[in-house]
Amino acid sequence: MSVFAVKGDICYSTSPAKIEALNDGYVIVEAGRISGVTRNPPNISVHDYTGHIVIPGMTDLHTHAPQYPFRGLGMGMELLEWLDTLIFPEEGRYSDTSYAEQVYSSFAEAMRKSPTTRAVIFGTIHAHAANILSAKMESSGLVSYVGKVSMNRNAPDYLTEANPLEAVESWLSDTASYTSTKPILTPRFTPSCTDELMRGLGELRKKYDLPVQSHLSENVSEVQWVKELCPDSRSYADTYDRYGLLEAPSIMAHCVHLTDEEAGLLKERGTFIAHCPQSNMNLSSGIAPVRRYMNMGMNIGLATDVAGGMYISMFRAVADAVGVSKLRSVLAEKEEPLTFEEAFYLATMGGGKFFGLAGSFMPGYEADILVLSATDSRHSNLRERLEREICLAGDDVELSAKYAAGRKLF
Amino acid sequence: MSVFAVKGDICYSTSPAKIEALNDGYVIVEAGRISGVTRNPPNISVHDYTGHIVIPGMTDLHTHAPQYPFRGLGMGMELLEWLDTLIFPEEGRYSDTSYAEQVYSSFAEAMRKSPTTRAVIFGTIHAHAANILSAKMESSGLVSYVGKVSMNRNAPDYLTEANPLEAVESWLSDTASYTSTKPILTPRFTPSCTDELMRGLGELRKKYDLPVQSHLSENVSEVQWVKELCPDSRSYADTYDRYGLLEAPSIMAHCVHLTDEEAGLLKERGTFIAHCPQSNMNLSSGIAPVRRYMNMGMNIGLATDVAGGMYISMFRAVADAVGVSKLRSVLAEKEEPLTFEEAFYLATMGGGKFFGLAGSFMPGYEADILVLSATDSRHSNLRERLEREICLAGDDVELSAKYAAGRKLF
Repeated sequence: MSVFAVKGDICYSTSPAKIEALNDGYVIVEAGRISGVTRNPPNISVHDYTGHIVIPGMTDLHTHAPQYPFRGLGMGMELLEWLDTLIFPEEGRYSDTSYAEQVYSSFAEAMRKSPTTRAVIFGTIHAHAANILSAKMESSGLVSYVGKVSMNRNAPDYLTEANPLEAVESWLSDTASYTSTKPILTPRFTPSCTDELMRGLGELRKKYDLPVQSHLSENVSEVQWVKELCPDSRSYADTYDRYGLLEAPSIMAHCVHLTDEEAGLLKERGTFIAHCPQSNMNLSSGIAPVRRYMNMGMNIGLATDVAGGMYISMFRAVADAVGVSKLRSVLAEKEEPLTFEEAFYLATMGGGKFFGLAGSFMPGYEADILVLSATDSRHSNLRERLEREICLAGDDVELSAKYAAGRKLF
Repeated sequence: MSVFAVKGDICYSTSPAKIEALNDGYVIVEAGRISGVTRNPPNISVHDYTGHIVIPGMTDLHTHAPQYPFRGLGMGMELLEWLDTLIFPEEGRYSDTSYAEQVYSSFAEAMRKSPTTRAVIFGTIHAHAANILSAKMESSGLVSYVGKVSMNRNAPDYLTEANPLEAVESWLSDTASYTSTKPILTPRFTPSCTDELMRGLGELRKKYDLPVQSHLSENVSEVQWVKELCPDSRSYADTYDRYGLLEAPSIMAHCVHLTDEEAGLLKERGTFIAHCPQSNMNLSSGIAPVRRYMNMGMNIGLATDVAGGMYISMFRAVADAVGVSKLRSVLAEKEEPLTFEEAFYLATMGGGKFFGLAGSFMPGYEADILVLSATDSRHSNLRERLEREICLAGDDVELSAKYAAGRKLF
């Protein structure tokens, strides 16, 4: 891979509290990784974006590709009603590979144009459709994990698998051909998976050394239902943990209503929390106590959770994370709201950590780079320009350039 | 004015609970007002927007034109710090008419392209700049009220008027030449106005038969400050009411923390509440109890409150009003969140009522019409398409056509 520099007004996190900001600087890329940021013109090929803001790519730690057509629909419902009424019938359609082909093409294209360079994605139970999704994501240039969903109870017949573990192993054998798109075990959530299925997935995790993604403690009714379904579990978190499914690398989306004991367990296991502020508002789930999780030093990133979240852009997730944390600080607990710095960190370094060294411009990080367009530099403070550009960007973000793992997507 | 019809997929409120939806219909306009909606092709000139969604124009009941350049800045602060640190210094610049000319041109152009057909707007204390703003709004084609701000205490010298009442009367004499842009009395808020100023504005209100706009009960620190400033007032609301400044037509922005007694007083006076969901989140003010106000049958509309709110688009205000009401229902009170129907009603008919008959397609309403672009009609239910288009629209909304009071803007 080539050596080159990206020139512009550079901003990147080095910690949750700190955004480095350097006007007219150079991000140096060597063999797909950052080797440094400098003020001095380097004697290598320069991609010149003078006047543009240059930031690390963002990681969307939780999203559902098959729900992409349903953004903005059914937002008057809460989680369980929304799943039954809208989402399950929609997901049923992915047995039709031509439908999967059509939706996953537009999803991957939207992801390609978005600020997301890395993503962790739910498919449906359909292995063939999951493979189509993986192929589309591979072509998009993003780095991603794609999961064929596992579920064998509390769903319509057409989404209930008779042999879910065999289905996973068969699907896994088809995923080897991709380089930037890896498989991830994906039990939908405890209400959809019997203990036997969870146990089997725990075994597959060890056998194939795979990461895991699922949902945890999103909505009060869901938490109550899990209590009824699993009377012998210590907690909702325990329904995963007793089969090893919280062990890093794993991602649990939402975590709005965790008990202290559950939060401690996730911390101990190194589980990543995918914070989904938009979705948790839209489905009346609540506001996750992100300040508490950050104070505990937990692994945490941001996510769009399409279609619980309406917006595919991680810029919107950053703005929403800050916004809802303010409402939480007024209405729920007297804790400090998230700063813009912290939300930016979560979207870049926080979620990026799931992929290793991603989401910063410190040396050794993978070269995920976004070049923003249309910056208004009347306000000369670069840090302020950054906040403004991120927060004011709509869903249809226009970027001037995008690189993932050192490769230029456009 | 001509007679014509606008053809498309028509949606409009007839009450807070009901959106009428008619595919392939015609909105008939005569002499600037709606004469009806019909399925039958009329024998008049047809503006054909087949396949587009056609809705009433929206009323932005509260926004600050001079804060337009500050959208997305300082969002880590609460109200009083934000005013002192960012907003007052910015407003001070409007003594420079060339600066006012520049910013108000871009504000008016953004408003012209937005979903807003009617707006109620704060300027600064500067009469000359307020006149520039009125001229720009007149040219925009929107119907609006523009207020020269009055303030004579608790502000930097450059924003404290020595003779605020004379300044208002002198400004008023310059506002007669506009037809779509009317003056409105604009005490900034109680902390900025002495009792003497409030009393004088109350007299001017009666003398010139003018409407009034101000801020009420936005932020907990502000409410506490008003208590200290006005120890002999029964309440924050009373600091306006004792000088007749709540009498309809008047608008009080925010009303996040009203007591029951204050809410009752506003109801009795017919005051309009401008609900500003974005701003109340950004400045950590809280979430106004809109469900309670609607149950009381109060006059209420939606507002962007730029730049406390970051977005000029009323579509965003609709989405945010629904979103934060869900968080309120989870975190604060067990009341029903706003439905999309209700938020759409507030943005159209609710705020439109301040202007008389505006914000619906029922016969007699002024012909404010928006034609949306780029609709995805795969989901054939028009009501669902409407929600989706409104909610997914970013700040930079593209409309195919816009009419205000029967006049085509584009």
